[in-house]
Amino acid sequence: MKIYETSTAPNARRVRMFLAEKAIDMEYVQIDIQAGENLGEAHRQKNFTTKIPVLELDDGSYISETVAICRYFEELQPQPPLLGSGARGKAVIEMWQRRVEFNLFMPVGMCFQHVTGYFKDRMTPIKAWGEECGKQVPVFLAALDRQLANSTFIAGETFSIADITALCALDFARVIKIRPGGEQTDLLRWHELVSSRPSAKA
Amino acid sequence: MKIYETSTAPNARRVRMFLAEKAIDMEYVQIDIQAGENLGEAHRQKNFTTKIPVLELDDGSYISETVAICRYFEELQPQPPLLGSGARGKAVIEMWQRRVEFNLFMPVGMCFQHVTGYFKDRMTPIKAWGEECGKQVPVFLAALDRQLANSTFIAGETFSIADITALCALDFARVIKIRPGGEQTDLLRWHELVSSRPSAKA
Repeated sequence: MKIYETSTAPNARRVRMFLAEKAIDMEYVQIDIQAGENLGEAHRQKNFTTKIPVLELDDGSYISETVAICRYFEELQPQPPLLGSGARGKAVIEMWQRRVEFNLFMPVGMCFQHVTGYFKDRMTPIKAWGEECGKQVPVFLAALDRQLANSTFIAGETFSIADITALCALDFARVIKIRPGGEQTDLLRWHELVSSRPSAKA
Repeated sequence: MKIYETSTAPNARRVRMFLAEKAIDMEYVQIDIQAGENLGEAHRQKNFTTKIPVLELDDGSYISETVAICRYFEELQPQPPLLGSGARGKAVIEMWQRRVEFNLFMPVGMCFQHVTGYFKDRMTPIKAWGEECGKQVPVFLAALDRQLANSTFIAGETFSIADITALCALDFARVIKIRPGGEQTDLLRWHELVSSRPSAKA
């Protein structure tokens, strides 16, 4: 098994952190997305959407999409559970994971792509849309701060994939100059807590 | 248990179709999103993101996010499996489900919101962004057509949540005047097949 990824990309970090939490060793192969290596035929054969990361299984088949790759390893090695336990537990973690994806991870990525024009050789940046996405981020950070006033981690008392997604989004948000406000003490407490896990350096 | 939803919304249809496939009876309570009922305090108490659908459990707690609600019922009643079986099977379905969400369901929704200005009383429509999203849809429909040349359903030989998400997106795409091309015969064959399931009318 091996994973094709780009070490600086936030989705790649999500998978590395997930595997580090489960102490699963992995071979990582770097794809240079800045140079457009992911747009070449070799990578399209692995994943027609051209995105990274992509997991190559030992039978030569591929799994792409960050959360699908995480799901594969959660099923192979359920301990420690990062996608939850029991019907309600799994649903609550998936709810928070998706809230964080749609209201933090994606707006941060959209703001980066559309405001900086980093990928303007392969997409049409629309600055007004990027700026709009940037405005949505602090609103959700305030909601996360309220949630974290009542729970140790984002989806409750157990560390989960929702924390991984939020940490990778928040750390990447520095490139668009968005950080938690000094008054968001619960969010800052959580950020220090999850950043101190060894997996955060994976 | 009951679900707060808006019958015409594509995410609401995804959940109704999922439950119909599992033959799970449900009480549905209508929320008038056009009138902004979801923005009121009563709905915010159920889901601070203001989105529908929201599942109310018998203990008075809430699960929001369409796929999290589906996950809850998949765990409660695994048959028929709509989120896959085994590590690889679950990962492949989640991969396709997310490909369909990010490359079809979301662009269709963004195009609708940003081009028509349907929710302009509560968001800033950016027409250029909506039009850009609209251009992405036919590109992904062509990819789906290629996939369906080799498999009965989107994620393989078994009907899954990926088919539900794609059907709800494709049918909703009529409001932005996007339909499969007449040459996309595999996509059209699939559309007729999944539309003929009783759950498509749920």
